[in-house]
Amino acid sequence: MNLQDTIAAPATASVTSALGIVRLSGGGAIDIVSKIFSLPDKKDFAKCAAANRLYYGTVTDNGSAVDEVVVGVFKSPHSFTGEDIVEITHHGSVFVQRKILELLLSNGARLADKGEFSLRAFLNGKMNLSQAEAVADLIQSTSEVSHSVAMSQLRGGYNRELKNLRQRFLKIASLLELEIDFSAEQEVFVDRNDLINELNGAIETVKSLIGSFRQGNAFKNGIPVAIAGKPNSGKSTLMNALLKDNRSIVSSTEGTTRDTVEETLTVKGINIRFIDTAGLRESDNEIEREGIKRSFQAINNSQTVLYLIDLSKDDVQSVDYQLAFLKQDADLNGKKLILVANKEDISNLPAKERKILEQRGAVFISAKNNESVDRVLDLIVEGFETEDINSKVFVSNVRHCDALKKALESMEAAYECACSDGSADLISEDIRRASGDLGQITGEITNEDVLTNIFSSFCIGK
Amino acid sequence: MNLQDTIAAPATASVTSALGIVRLSGGGAIDIVSKIFSLPDKKDFAKCAAANRLYYGTVTDNGSAVDEVVVGVFKSPHSFTGEDIVEITHHGSVFVQRKILELLLSNGARLADKGEFSLRAFLNGKMNLSQAEAVADLIQSTSEVSHSVAMSQLRGGYNRELKNLRQRFLKIASLLELEIDFSAEQEVFVDRNDLINELNGAIETVKSLIGSFRQGNAFKNGIPVAIAGKPNSGKSTLMNALLKDNRSIVSSTEGTTRDTVEETLTVKGINIRFIDTAGLRESDNEIEREGIKRSFQAINNSQTVLYLIDLSKDDVQSVDYQLAFLKQDADLNGKKLILVANKEDISNLPAKERKILEQRGAVFISAKNNESVDRVLDLIVEGFETEDINSKVFVSNVRHCDALKKALESMEAAYECACSDGSADLISEDIRRASGDLGQITGEITNEDVLTNIFSSFCIGK
Repeated sequence: MNLQDTIAAPATASVTSALGIVRLSGGGAIDIVSKIFSLPDKKDFAKCAAANRLYYGTVTDNGSAVDEVVVGVFKSPHSFTGEDIVEITHHGSVFVQRKILELLLSNGARLADKGEFSLRAFLNGKMNLSQAEAVADLIQSTSEVSHSVAMSQLRGGYNRELKNLRQRFLKIASLLELEIDFSAEQEVFVDRNDLINELNGAIETVKSLIGSFRQGNAFKNGIPVAIAGKPNSGKSTLMNALLKDNRSIVSSTEGTTRDTVEETLTVKGINIRFIDTAGLRESDNEIEREGIKRSFQAINNSQTVLYLIDLSKDDVQSVDYQLAFLKQDADLNGKKLILVANKEDISNLPAKERKILEQRGAVFISAKNNESVDRVLDLIVEGFETEDINSKVFVSNVRHCDALKKALESMEAAYECACSDGSADLISEDIRRASGDLGQITGEITNEDVLTNIFSSFCIGK
Repeated sequence: MNLQDTIAAPATASVTSALGIVRLSGGGAIDIVSKIFSLPDKKDFAKCAAANRLYYGTVTDNGSAVDEVVVGVFKSPHSFTGEDIVEITHHGSVFVQRKILELLLSNGARLADKGEFSLRAFLNGKMNLSQAEAVADLIQSTSEVSHSVAMSQLRGGYNRELKNLRQRFLKIASLLELEIDFSAEQEVFVDRNDLINELNGAIETVKSLIGSFRQGNAFKNGIPVAIAGKPNSGKSTLMNALLKDNRSIVSSTEGTTRDTVEETLTVKGINIRFIDTAGLRESDNEIEREGIKRSFQAINNSQTVLYLIDLSKDDVQSVDYQLAFLKQDADLNGKKLILVANKEDISNLPAKERKILEQRGAVFISAKNNESVDRVLDLIVEGFETEDINSKVFVSNVRHCDALKKALESMEAAYECACSDGSADLISEDIRRASGDLGQITGEITNEDVLTNIFSSFCIGK
């Protein structure tokens, strides 16, 4: 990837719409556009293009008009990428967009790699790495809370805090290294009690950020909820009651939901991604067995499992038998397991057994009659409070969470070492390692692989 | 629909992408945007917004940031609609787009009706009706030729010619009406021979425009081609050979293609829309009968029918029997019927019979071995020559074609009347009628119903 090239890419989807945008970034952006774009007064666009101005004119290909467009000019360094940017707003035809892009490419632009506009913005110091990632999150955001989390990160989020922490760490490490240099004199540049206190505070900060990930991730990606249970326990009926439409086929023949069906519902601004699964039972039917296999995968990938039991058939013993595996899985992987006792309308369960299920937190519903179904939604979003979303900071990025965990490890090692009167060089090594991990979040420390990995997940034109 | 309102609408598709656009048009556009948009220097946008300028800033909702955007300003009358226009380019999140739109609507904008931006452009004299329609065609264009036809219409096309013709007609009618006023004096203001010559020329012009519709329509909408034939004659195999991929299921079980499958291929810039159909035969199977019914519908809606015969089974007699209905249909509706003799690789047809089919224009192929398949494509686009597409004028709009046909009728009546020395008032009436029909094409004459009908087929935001 040559970062000296002028790059071009569509910035809007290849879908028929009123308008579309193709954009360019780089030193040659204005010159390249001037080769295919004519102003009505025949003036030379390359000469008159001024920053932050809009120009109406015609894109032509060998003299024949391709489209009448509006061209916007942003000049280096005051642009998204920090380079010259030209945005061509054209009529939203897929053909026109492709044609304009082709013309730009044949006149000296290179097709941008995925995320290359953002990469350039990062490399030119227009935003830090975490902000660039926030732009990608913002684009993907589909709910109030995913938007809030992305926007907060775009506007700085926990970056300043981490940056300060990192600067502090680097200073402490340098002072500790001075002690090593002056070890003959037994000079102490860092008071150990102060250091222990400071590390303690930093550890709390980082722990709290890591702790926010569960929520931040749910806000960003939604909560994957698998609806599981034996065939004919009413899974599709529940899903339909929850979604109040008819996306999955409801039928009383066992095993009709052979594939997993995913639907999203937004509750209190949080996306809940419901995965209706095939009934869990032994089967000789190959297609059905495939469906059951996928159900287990869906349960694996979910964060919450709604397990349906059939009050007209099941008793406590059979419920225990059914739940054994799921409970273990939930405990092991920190999942929420919600026991949904369905078919309240035709329940055969004795009062005593009902009490036992109640004590185990079962929610009694009738999916068919849409009774108490909203209770299920409440239980799903319980623990994901969104009231303080604009005042609190959430980590929603896996990469950040991983870096924080690594940093925490080193910080705890440094803390242990300081508490047990360890040597300055050991403490400084741990602190430097922690500051390195923190620096990866904002991109103060990075390498090509990490960057490629991050930006290649962006869309073209971003 | 109140045309004094300031309207707002998304101008890009509700799809995740790098950027998206929401735009407003109307006297209040700048004021409304200023309520939700803040500049970094806190200046009042409403006061500093200048024409053809771009502004970077933040869209906020009750103090919390919704997105960082670029706002473009166009001022009346130098804008697409002729009114003040503001375009907000935001990060391409579906959520952000909806949010910005909601904010605009709650701050005084009204959601634009379909095509209302273009309607306003037309009503404010920024483009004529035919050009507004061309914008819609341009957006829908997906091929080189559909794009050329739309672009030619957008840039004037046959408008000037029709406008001149109409002005001429109005003048002649006035002069003829003067003759009526001065009938006592037997004054002649319009020489009848000149009139006959002029009408004759005009009739030729309009006939040639009507004649261009078959091609213009094919250029704009593509050529719908039904692939028909008995079950197992190799329809899906041919379609796949044509498309060189595996969209429809190829299998040797009779009647496997139960639904119609449509695929588009671009040949010489023309879109060919292939419709693979269920095999045509009697069937007791309900689902299959439904498929056969749809096949006949597909044949009805097509402009070209590829009829496949199976050289390993069919002979001339059976071919004649099969083709009887289709030939009649093709003759009646001006369709092209191409006889495709398939399975050349395992042909059992005697040489003599083969000669007969050759004389009937059959093209011999082996779909399975991809032999001579390109010949079929050549036959489909035969007669739709695109060489002169940029120099010739094509009518591609059904509404225009209908108006031209009506105008032609009146012009021919006027011609007949003039030739048979008819009265000035009869001739003038026909000529006025013709000029009225021509005026509807450019929109010089129009009514609310026609406008509603035209613009409601546009997309939102256009």
